[in-house]
Amino acid sequence: MSILFNNVTIIGVGLIGGSLAKVLKTKGLARSITGSGRSRASLEQALRMGVIDHIGQGAGYGVEDADLVVLASPVGSFEKIAREIAPHLKKGAVLTDVGSVKGSLARMLESILLPDRHYVPAHPIAGREKSGVAEAIDTLFDGRRCILTPTKNTDKTALEKVRELWSATGAVVSIMDADLHDRVFAAVSHLPHVAAFAMICAIAELNTGTDDYLDFSGAGFRDFTRIAASSPEMWRDICLLNRENLIPMIDRYVFSLNRFKREIIAGDGKRLEKHLQLASDVRRGLK
Amino acid sequence: MSILFNNVTIIGVGLIGGSLAKVLKTKGLARSITGSGRSRASLEQALRMGVIDHIGQGAGYGVEDADLVVLASPVGSFEKIAREIAPHLKKGAVLTDVGSVKGSLARMLESILLPDRHYVPAHPIAGREKSGVAEAIDTLFDGRRCILTPTKNTDKTALEKVRELWSATGAVVSIMDADLHDRVFAAVSHLPHVAAFAMICAIAELNTGTDDYLDFSGAGFRDFTRIAASSPEMWRDICLLNRENLIPMIDRYVFSLNRFKREIIAGDGKRLEKHLQLASDVRRGLK
Repeated sequence: MSILFNNVTIIGVGLIGGSLAKVLKTKGLARSITGSGRSRASLEQALRMGVIDHIGQGAGYGVEDADLVVLASPVGSFEKIAREIAPHLKKGAVLTDVGSVKGSLARMLESILLPDRHYVPAHPIAGREKSGVAEAIDTLFDGRRCILTPTKNTDKTALEKVRELWSATGAVVSIMDADLHDRVFAAVSHLPHVAAFAMICAIAELNTGTDDYLDFSGAGFRDFTRIAASSPEMWRDICLLNRENLIPMIDRYVFSLNRFKREIIAGDGKRLEKHLQLASDVRRGLK
Repeated sequence: MSILFNNVTIIGVGLIGGSLAKVLKTKGLARSITGSGRSRASLEQALRMGVIDHIGQGAGYGVEDADLVVLASPVGSFEKIAREIAPHLKKGAVLTDVGSVKGSLARMLESILLPDRHYVPAHPIAGREKSGVAEAIDTLFDGRRCILTPTKNTDKTALEKVRELWSATGAVVSIMDADLHDRVFAAVSHLPHVAAFAMICAIAELNTGTDDYLDFSGAGFRDFTRIAASSPEMWRDICLLNRENLIPMIDRYVFSLNRFKREIIAGDGKRLEKHLQLASDVRRGLK
């Protein structure tokens, strides 16, 4: 493929940022890739792995020459970083991100940029319970969704280039309204993560007298809670930034749990089976 | 290996019953295997698959000559079946089961048998989201736990033979108090199943206007809810029969969810991250 951006700066070279850098390198989509972020150790690791060409600590490093800047740190850091780098972005530069929250966060990031700098909000659906640049692979986005949530102000050319970038990673790119995105992902991603974290918290301190309860957990429990091994910092930020949509989803989930509880207490096998059947049918219908 | 039981009757030839029959056949642990149960179609399928030698509908079929009878139908059917077959079991016959609930259910089953008939409660931890005899494999129990919950009345010889049976399947056999078993599995198995079923119920009816929310679910959601594809009938019975332990576990889980909710509403990133970190550390510690 041909060069899409001359100089790319990735802020936060972890699983997602590192994997994107790997694709850029493997497919020759960028002339030069700079990585910056908080952790010197992980930047040096990325450099040794050949994932990026230059490193610098501090978010501001290497953004002056960047044609594309990618925010790939926890979403809670985006606003501060955007304010820090905004004055240094050159005209025509594109800012994008890989955050799991869009909505008002994206509108705010857009408002921070100077004229002729273009923000394109993006969310590749490629999280794993693993994190860190050591886990980066250039096939991470292959066949996964990547959702772009442009506003009415988003520059069309910048949007097209970011779309090309994600298509080149193998992702299936689609466009979605930013607020709808946040409602949908509160339901299908943020809530299940909270639910898995909460499950582990609920069970962790129980013990039989000699063993932890968890010593008896089987494959089902492990599948169910796999996502609870995800990065706490990342999920703290997502929970807080999408709280407006997440809280009603937690309520909806607790309602559903309490409905099962009531049916069980009442010994209402018929209703209980009806709801279990509904869930089972829907789940079997998912690939 | 050598014959452990001459005539074995398995009541309920689904995933578990069928897989056990397969092991008995493959390893030559029984001279003759009879299958009985409600569904003529699945018994005939088991016969065609060569999993069992004889079939008969109705739980009572083939129990007169049985040296071992295995209850492998949903746990809600155990009491009725035990009452039906009890008068027909020969002296020295062993009754066992593969149910996920023990405790008072097991004590009741024990009390139903005539003198010189021996009940050994067993629980192989080998469930999958798949069910039905078509999914039966003779490696299902290999390396998995099988828990026996004998009472003070359990016949030692019968216990030893059932232990040998499960060891022969490749399972790691252990002994546990029946009530402790029910508390532990309410936490690490029954609660997660209810939680997964409840999650699907909570999300299933949401739609974006054009798509279901579930169209946007990723690998994490699929892992999290895989166990919700399990048999509704089986889980209805487990929920109802272990309600005494399950209800406090649902309450504990809802408490844990609501604690996250409060921390998110309060914007208390520090406490939120602490609890996420705790869960993440524990989950990473599981194999």
